Amino acid sequence: MSKYVFAVDLGGTTVKMGLFDVDGNVLEKWEIVTRKENGGEKILPDIAESILAKMQEKSIAKDDVLGIGIGVPGPVDSKGTIYKAANLGWGVFNVSETLGKLTSLPVKTGNDANVAALGEMWKGGGQGYNSIVAVTLGTGVGGGVIIEGKLVAGSTGAGGEIGHIHVEDNETISCGCGNCGCLEQYTSATGITRLANERLAQDNKPSVLRDGEVSAKTVFDAVKAGDELAIEVAEIFGMYLGKGLAAVGAVVNPEAFVIGGGVSKAGEVLFDYIEKNYMKYSFHGTRNVKFRLATLGNDAGIYGAAKLIVG
Amino acid sequence: MSKYVFAVDLGGTTVKMGLFDVDGNVLEKWEIVTRKENGGEKILPDIAESILAKMQEKSIAKDDVLGIGIGVPGPVDSKGTIYKAANLGWGVFNVSETLGKLTSLPVKTGNDANVAALGEMWKGGGQGYNSIVAVTLGTGVGGGVIIEGKLVAGSTGAGGEIGHIHVEDNETISCGCGNCGCLEQYTSATGITRLANERLAQDNKPSVLRDGEVSAKTVFDAVKAGDELAIEVAEIFGMYLGKGLAAVGAVVNPEAFVIGGGVSKAGEVLFDYIEKNYMKYSFHGTRNVKFRLATLGNDAGIYGAAKLIVG
Repeated sequence: MSKYVFAVDLGGTTVKMGLFDVDGNVLEKWEIVTRKENGGEKILPDIAESILAKMQEKSIAKDDVLGIGIGVPGPVDSKGTIYKAANLGWGVFNVSETLGKLTSLPVKTGNDANVAALGEMWKGGGQGYNSIVAVTLGTGVGGGVIIEGKLVAGSTGAGGEIGHIHVEDNETISCGCGNCGCLEQYTSATGITRLANERLAQDNKPSVLRDGEVSAKTVFDAVKAGDELAIEVAEIFGMYLGKGLAAVGAVVNPEAFVIGGGVSKAGEVLFDYIEKNYMKYSFHGTRNVKFRLATLGNDAGIYGAAKLIVG
Repeated sequence: MSKYVFAVDLGGTTVKMGLFDVDGNVLEKWEIVTRKENGGEKILPDIAESILAKMQEKSIAKDDVLGIGIGVPGPVDSKGTIYKAANLGWGVFNVSETLGKLTSLPVKTGNDANVAALGEMWKGGGQGYNSIVAVTLGTGVGGGVIIEGKLVAGSTGAGGEIGHIHVEDNETISCGCGNCGCLEQYTSATGITRLANERLAQDNKPSVLRDGEVSAKTVFDAVKAGDELAIEVAEIFGMYLGKGLAAVGAVVNPEAFVIGGGVSKAGEVLFDYIEKNYMKYSFHGTRNVKFRLATLGNDAGIYGAAKLIVG
């Protein structure tokens, strides 16, 4: 008898869903809309309904479903309690219990960035390792820490919040979190754009970045084309990320860092700037570490959610 | 039939040993000398001989010994491999296997600071928590990260090396590790003494610290007596330690920090300087954390070594 796992990656706009077998093969993927009205009260019932409908459509019995794994955009502890998800309008409650009651299926819940990290370790850029730190360089900077195969959720769900490691004492502009000098302020897509704009304003040094929109993508495209000013920006980016990841290394000494998120589309050129700075700032005992690119893109979340159940 | 555990805390001068029951009660404690000649080849045979002699003395049968836990002064991975211990003259080998063959008993090995952290969680300042970071402020700064009851040894045994988190960009003096600006350079006993001497040299501000030996102890004694200059030094100490622990918090989000080592003898006054800076530099989601003093002193190592076996 074949067994199934349902995987859910809950985002602020859409809910990505997947039906998996226990070996991690996706049998089907689909999406539903995230209905955020009334404090997000419809979200979990909508997910439950969609899963139950899929089971009926495919004639899957409850006994053949190992469970539902779900990644949610907020801090979640190892027991499934979410500590507010402002994006969804959610307060503090146990997601696993609530979705469990709605479906009569076992549910495991994790933070979305943490769950994506688990996906990358299982089927993506972190394959072959079992202690990794996944680093998501997107609009913000997120992370997921996995030690010997297990997610470090954190006692109040804030494990892997590496975007908020303090890396610059002289910053005067606030991060979204309210602090000044967070890693995210320099190494997210937004942060790279800001670093580039600040560098462009410093003087009149020629650069292809002066001829159009400045973004993390155009910066690293320019780096690859040998643009000197863009390379200066990449050096600053690498200095901050190397310094931040060195701190992470001193805490958990992972086998590999797996770099994902929109910025990672730039590819291995990123490592030219990250690795040498990691080596500079890191403790020597933590330097035997690999840098890898994430490979699952937007599907990391459902793979990781499935892995929460498969274990 | 009662069951026993042997616990070993291997230091550069002496080996502390303990005979425990499985509930963590010390039945007997003793020490032997650490013989470091010839690359430390005598150390494990000496330990084995001492344990076997104790078993004979007490008429303890092999079947009644659950195993031997040992903390060693160097990086150890979760399988018991040590990656050099310069202090002992040791290279790379599996400590658990070697001591296991010498005694025909099961052996588990950990880094000494990590093992001491486990001891503090089990029977010391970290009791009641199961995700803690122990911080040892001694000649250097060490640490031990425990997540849901399990030590984070690190992929090459360097988990918890938090003394080497980079916290100061403008440092020109090297840390013992070769980097500049490590947490240890400001918050170890040595670091505090240096901060105080630097402050004293700055001007002629009166201070009781001008009348005798400057040490971490005299600095915090002066802080308690209201000495303004000593308080300035404590503020710098607290700023660096708060900043470093905030980075640790963003990675693993522990329930508690347990502060030990010689500097911690100053007592709770330390928290006046650490906590407010932790709150300043930390991500808001990691601020619900307790600060506690270690309570086991030099015995933390044997308690933790016993806990390695009791599990």
